[in-house]
Amino acid sequence: MENDTVFVGKKPTMSYVLAILTHINSGHDSITLKARGMLVSKAVDISQIVTRKFSKELKVSNVSIGSEEINDKDGNKRMVSFISIELKK
Amino acid sequence: MENDTVFVGKKPTMSYVLAILTHINSGHDSITLKARGMLVSKAVDISQIVTRKFSKELKVSNVSIGSEEINDKDGNKRMVSFISIELKK
Repeated sequence: MENDTVFVGKKPTMSYVLAILTHINSGHDSITLKARGMLVSKAVDISQIVTRKFSKELKVSNVSIGSEEINDKDGNKRMVSFISIELKK
Repeated sequence: MENDTVFVGKKPTMSYVLAILTHINSGHDSITLKARGMLVSKAVDISQIVTRKFSKELKVSNVSIGSEEINDKDGNKRMVSFISIELKK
């Protein structure tokens, strides 16, 4: 389901932590965090704050990395890294 | 072996790419990239540049994330995220 994925962006870290906890507390067993470029570090931080400080049930169940080509604002193609972190009960 | 690990720091991205390629070309089958905090994104970038642009043999074989407590320069304890990326032939 598409809404089992949280895309990490420019909001404060705790906004994403809360979004994940809300999703899990509403009855879901898992959620996937996705981030690109410099936000990859932030996604890892969010996963650690959730699993170490807020939820004893949730664990990191899968981590994958990769890269994809995007068109930047000047119309040039460039490669951007991404991470996908699955948290599961 | 300890020198099968590259710790990602402040050097240019391409320094790490070269270090990895040199290590592999000297006869090793694998290498692990490690990074903490904001450098986590850089480690993912390095893994992607190596596997997509420079080496058709090397693949990402394992990715793990976690966090550890460190003492910052003011003597306070804080949590820092890390990533470990194994590249293997």
